[in-house]
Amino acid sequence: MSQVYIGLVHYPVLNRKNEVIASAITSIDLHDLGRLACTYDLPTCYIITPLVDQQDLAKRLIKYWCEGTGKEHHPNRAEALELLKLVNTTEKAVEDIESREGVNPEIWATSARKREKKAHLFTYREARIHLASSSNPVLLLFGTAWGLAPDLIEKCDRILTPILGKSNYNHLSVRCAAAIILDRLLGREDT
Amino acid sequence: MSQVYIGLVHYPVLNRKNEVIASAITSIDLHDLGRLACTYDLPTCYIITPLVDQQDLAKRLIKYWCEGTGKEHHPNRAEALELLKLVNTTEKAVEDIESREGVNPEIWATSARKREKKAHLFTYREARIHLASSSNPVLLLFGTAWGLAPDLIEKCDRILTPILGKSNYNHLSVRCAAAIILDRLLGREDT
Repeated sequence: MSQVYIGLVHYPVLNRKNEVIASAITSIDLHDLGRLACTYDLPTCYIITPLVDQQDLAKRLIKYWCEGTGKEHHPNRAEALELLKLVNTTEKAVEDIESREGVNPEIWATSARKREKKAHLFTYREARIHLASSSNPVLLLFGTAWGLAPDLIEKCDRILTPILGKSNYNHLSVRCAAAIILDRLLGREDT
Repeated sequence: MSQVYIGLVHYPVLNRKNEVIASAITSIDLHDLGRLACTYDLPTCYIITPLVDQQDLAKRLIKYWCEGTGKEHHPNRAEALELLKLVNTTEKAVEDIESREGVNPEIWATSARKREKKAHLFTYREARIHLASSSNPVLLLFGTAWGLAPDLIEKCDRILTPILGKSNYNHLSVRCAAAIILDRLLGREDT
């Protein structure tokens, strides 16, 4: 079984005009992604941003919840936020995984945009089978703002198909999209 | 196929001391639940709170995103938030559904707490089969704060089993839990 890591990418991502930007940290994303990592027993959720002031903001938030009063009142929240790790770039996350696992992870992109069928596009069924039969670690990337920049997606080994609900609306929050994707990949099938 | 409605309950819910309270509106929950309703093609997401000042807050938020500049800049967000409907109580949501569907909905509770196996506890597999084979509408309730109060859960026709990830951690945000539950019930199986 592959070990899955997740990364919440703040650069390079798109804004609504399709320009590449570095997005701001959203505190609730850090809480929700940490709690998801805890639920699906993932070792680390990388918070990826090159902006020093945004890293400082995230550090303060994590410190509040993982120490002192914050931890005392909400021990479960501390357990989740302790899984967050701040890094400058996706490459730094890859290096960190390599140092822990002894091998480079595959990098999988997630995206709400439809693409033409390509060899490296994965359905969730294919991805589940792959995770179950492989021993290679996987770094699963989620984009904030309007999603991962195309240049980053192109460098990924695989792209997961967009989440289809019942309509053609494809504007979920990154929190909800990450929840659905992790459950599709790792949720217990007996329920 | 059953028509599914969702309700985000702010009263009666529990606080961390297991006391019954009315919780505050969290603006991001309104955005995320509206976007989920849009994704899974649900007609309405009821925002259930008896607190008038909280209703006023929600009205202002919905008005901002569904009219003028908000709608102009983020038409997709307007499309989602237009599905929100403020009601005082779960009973009012039931009445509204009855007036639209001509029949009272079944009420299904969601809860992260483990319960002894009971006749009215539903696995997701059972729930999916039920939805596909029934024509009765269903109102699916999500609790804010520390979850739906036991008295409300007892009045529900069914309780969905807690979401199991890979660990025993069961402290997802209501946003992420709702995303996973709706995807398990209504997501397209071909992906």
